[in-house]
Formats: sequence, C-alpha cells, structure tokens
Amino acid sequence: MTVQEIKGKKLVKGIAPNVEPDALLHDKRKVFLFGSPSYTNIGDQAIAYAEEKFIKNHFPYYEYIEIMDYATDEGIELVKEIIREDDIVCFTGGGNLGNLYLDIEEDRRKVFSAFKDYKSISLPQSVYFEDTDAGNKEKKKTQDAYHQNSNLTIAARETQTLDVVKETFNSNVIFTPDMVLSLDIVPRELERDGVLFILRADKEKVTDEDFISQMRKWAEKTTCTERTDTVLDTVDTIDYADREKHLMEMLDRIGSSKLVITDRLHAMIFSIITKTPCLVFGNSYGKAKHSYRDWLESLNFIEYTDQHDMKELERMIDRLLQAEPNEVDLSRDFQPLVDFFKS
Amino acid sequence: MTVQEIKGKKLVKGIAPNVEPDALLHDKRKVFLFGSPSYTNIGDQAIAYAEEKFIKNHFPYYEYIEIMDYATDEGIELVKEIIREDDIVCFTGGGNLGNLYLDIEEDRRKVFSAFKDYKSISLPQSVYFEDTDAGNKEKKKTQDAYHQNSNLTIAARETQTLDVVKETFNSNVIFTPDMVLSLDIVPRELERDGVLFILRADKEKVTDEDFISQMRKWAEKTTCTERTDTVLDTVDTIDYADREKHLMEMLDRIGSSKLVITDRLHAMIFSIITKTPCLVFGNSYGKAKHSYRDWLESLNFIEYTDQHDMKELERMIDRLLQAEPNEVDLSRDFQPLVDFFKS
Repeated sequence: MTVQEIKGKKLVKGIAPNVEPDALLHDKRKVFLFGSPSYTNIGDQAIAYAEEKFIKNHFPYYEYIEIMDYATDEGIELVKEIIREDDIVCFTGGGNLGNLYLDIEEDRRKVFSAFKDYKSISLPQSVYFEDTDAGNKEKKKTQDAYHQNSNLTIAARETQTLDVVKETFNSNVIFTPDMVLSLDIVPRELERDGVLFILRADKEKVTDEDFISQMRKWAEKTTCTERTDTVLDTVDTIDYADREKHLMEMLDRIGSSKLVITDRLHAMIFSIITKTPCLVFGNSYGKAKHSYRDWLESLNFIEYTDQHDMKELERMIDRLLQAEPNEVDLSRDFQPLVDFFKS
Repeated sequence: MTVQEIKGKKLVKGIAPNVEPDALLHDKRKVFLFGSPSYTNIGDQAIAYAEEKFIKNHFPYYEYIEIMDYATDEGIELVKEIIREDDIVCFTGGGNLGNLYLDIEEDRRKVFSAFKDYKSISLPQSVYFEDTDAGNKEKKKTQDAYHQNSNLTIAARETQTLDVVKETFNSNVIFTPDMVLSLDIVPRELERDGVLFILRADKEKVTDEDFISQMRKWAEKTTCTERTDTVLDTVDTIDYADREKHLMEMLDRIGSSKLVITDRLHAMIFSIITKTPCLVFGNSYGKAKHSYRDWLESLNFIEYTDQHDMKELERMIDRLLQAEPNEVDLSRDFQPLVDFFKS
C-alpha cells in the first residue's frame, strides 16, 4: 500500500481531507460523512463544520472521515473496501433533500443505496419536492433509492419536514434543530455599524426586489447599508482546510452589523450566534420560517415576518434593536442524534 | 526562517505540538498554554484535553498553542519573540499549585513573571501550601513571582481553594469546576464487570492500606476486583499526539467496571462521564471532597465519604449501584472562564 492507494482504491483528493490516510485503516468505529460541501454556501459549510464538532466532542473514540462532494463516486468505491459492520454512513445536512438541487440529491441516493446494509443517516435536513410532474418523478427516484436501505434514519430539522418525511419514506425519522445550532461559539466583541441585507439570488428567492429597494432606502435614511449573500462569489470552491476561516469571516461580517435583514436560514442562525438583531423573511418553501417557529421563537432579537408594511416593519426593528439579546438552549434537542450515534 | 527557527529562536520538540509551525506567526489572537503535561497522570492529561476543546469550541477564531512542560524554558524564549499585546498566556489547570509539586510550581512562577505585561491565567486549580516552614517559604516565592504580574487571574476549582487564593494572592480570582467537567463525551456502552480500585501511591495518599485490603476482601466475596491508578506506569511519557488515546483507554477501563472505589478526583470525574457508580475517599487536603461538595453532590451514583465502617459502606454502595445515573449540568458554571477569554 502506498499513501495514494488504500486496499487497491485510489485515495483521490477529497477523500478523508480531515485525517491522515492511515486513519482509514484504524481499528476504531468509523463515521463517514458523505456530501461534505466544496461549494461556497457558507450555511452548508457551517453545517459540515458543526457536524464535525458534534461527533468529535461527543464521540472522540470514533474515527470521523469526510468525503467531499466532488469525490463521491471514488469515495463510495474506497469506503466499500474499508467499511466494517459497525460503521456509520452519514450524508451531510442542509436544505437540499428534494428536487431543487438534483446533483446533491443524486449523490445522496447513490450513497444510501450503496451502503444499504450499514447504519445510515441523512443529517438534519429540510425536505422539499415540488408538487409538479418533475418533482413527483424525482421523489419516486429518491424513494426507490432510500428504500433499498432498511437501516436509514432521516433527521428532519423542522416539523414541516418531519411531516413530509413521514408521508414520503418508510425510513426511521428523528427531529432535531439545524446542526449549526449545536455550535457553542462565543461571539467576538466587534464594533457594529449599518444594516446588512443578506439575500438569496437563487431559485428559492421569493422576496421582491422592489420591496428590498424600499427597505434599503428606508434604512439609508439613518445609517449605511450593504447587500451580500451567504453564498460567496469571491471564491470558486471551499475545501475542508479553509472551511473554518470562511465561516469566521462571515460571523465577523454579521457580528459587526447593527441589524441583519435576510431571507437566508443561516444568516438568521449566524445572527443568533453573534447576537445581532435580525429580521427574517421567507424562501419559497418556508425553511427559515419553520425553523424559527419550531425552535427560535423565544429569541427577543430575532423575528420572522411576512409583513411588507414599512410602518409595521419599523416598529418590529425598533423592538429588535432595543432587546438585550437572550438565549435559547437547544442542546437537549440534539439528544435523538446523540442516541443515534451511540447505539 | 526555516521550520526549525521562528524569529531566531529554536522551535524545539514540545513547542506548539498541536499546530503547524506557521500558526506561530498568524495574525490571529493567540492563546498560549504552558505546562501542557507530558507525565502520565491521566487526570492532568484530561485537563489539558478539556482545555483545548474549551478554547476551540468557544473561540475558534483564536490560535491555540500548547507548550509541553519539558519545553517550558525554550517555550518562554520563543513566545517572548512572537507574543502580541492582545494575546493570552495560560498555565494548565490541575491540583499542583503549591509546594507539593515544586517542578511544576517553579515553571508556573517562571511563566507568570516572564509574561507579566500580558493577560495571564492559571486555569482551574486546587491550591495547597503545607503549613510548615518549607511550605511557607515556597508560598512566599510563589507570591513574589505571581505578584509581578498585575494581569494575572487565578481560577479556583473549589471554594476551599477560592478562600486560599483570596488570602494568599492579590490577583483576580474566578471560580469554576475542574476543566474535565466541561467535556461533553457520550459514554460508550460497555459490558460491566467487577470493582475497580483506583488509588493513589503518592504523597497525597491518606487511605490506609489495611482498610483498602478489608474493602477488597469484602468486594471479592461477590465479584472480581482490580487495583490501578490514574497515573500510568506502562509508559514513561504521554505527548500531545497520544493524549486522546490514553484518555479514551482510561474511560473504557472505568466504564467497563460495575463500581469504582477511589481517592482520585479524576477517577471520580471519569466515573461521572462514564456513568459508573463511584465511592470516593479523600486525599491529604480535600481535593476530591471539596469538588464533590461544591459541584457534584446532586449526583445519585457518586458518593464522597470519610466513613470506614464496612456495614455503612455496604449500604452506601448498594444505593449507588441501584441508582439510575442522573446528570448535573455545569456548563453555566464555566461562564467566568468564557468571560475571561472573551475580553
């Protein structure tokens, strides 16, 4: 065996970037994370970051091994050679289980059917298949793939998804918050200035551009504003080694704003971590809304709204800005995931 | 600059074993941990392990750099070259601040006086100077060294130590549990058998050998017994890279016992982590006793006692064995330490 080959399979870039190659042959129980994101959505990067912390903090006696999304096929081939009866196969969490991000969904189908005899889990996700011919066709393909695996657990991160999963799949289902809410980062104390608009530019976008302009003009009467997205366009890919740096930069950017206005679930969650007042609007199928309602409604400095009346919004924002940020402890809500990995 | 030299100082073994050498020159705020243990006391190894997790989980935007105990002098010289105004100097926690472990105490004096102009902390410790001429002489030396550093905070891990620190030093003082109690490890589910006696063989030992024999004989009437210590004699040193492995082995050993009987603080704490019923006796100056009283008394499967009557002890042990292990959440009690590192 050379460093470049493990049991006759090529150890290509993207397989096990987080460990030394010999970890692949250790005697420990292994947890494989497939779908580890290389794309520049910092929400999904933060999820992978939190998944790693979760396993390493709670189960330091396991060997945690990531396989980057671009190495899925080669990763499956290699893991097939080294996996043992007791090991666990995970596919990363997010908001992409459904027909909107088919490249990711196709990888997830491959992974769960390839490892049908092993304890498997889809980490906390939002699930959404469009109710169209195309959506239903893809749903059928996903069902066919997942149902090959009788050892599969699907973790839903909102009650809405929980209902969809129960209707759609025969798999076990558990209910936990988004993984990023399991992090325990103490926010840096930064000078704050201006209003940061963090807005989608993708197929889930429903917030009207005229309305956005109106809000921005309103904000600019008293302060400076900036517009960005949690999907970076300054880099093409983010590999394992740069994940933490990019996440920290995003947290700093949000934590140095006086107010965040967003339609991104993770911009809301990063606002929670950095104790930044945040007003949240919806996406096409209620991802941020339902996470807010299910887990986060007691936070006094975060508010979800569908309101478009500027007078009402002003009153809301005033309340958010005046609140002394409180906390919500969700650590117990991850217990179903702890129990899954323990057994 | 070569890898072997940083700013003209030799990067000897034991300096920064946990990072790549270029981390020493990064732009991030740095946290230096001095006194990182290479000796085989798994309690102290667990403390260093927990300190690293604590900083990395709460402050991932800091650069955490360890200096092993055997590299203290070279480490001080090198850190002097690279330290910046905002950086933080720590000396590892434990139960060795005082005159019983002078080699460690001398290193601590050196570190706090060498970095007198920097934010400094003695991580959670038990403090004990013997009330003898020798003890008082050493106390004076320690006071002289620490008092050069007006930026020093001392973290006490029991109320008893808190009182001693307030009496003895002008430094700031904070009060938190032992660092190992900040870990969030889920115990492995192991088959349990027998009674494990984990007993000191050092200068803090006060449990009488006749009494130990009597307990062991009593236990052997119904089950097997073993005797060990949390200080390993199977290896000479434990370096950074092997710390986790040895800690996991100790947790497995304790977690596969039906009952632990000990006079070691960390055998008690490892029993808590692994949910192993545990009866605890004292050491020479009340380390385990006071941690138990201050933080852990509500645990139904752990009991501290000074009782030597076998009938009474039998009743106690029966209660411990029958309890469905409960939990105590100390995460809030580490807030003073979070606040220290945040500011």
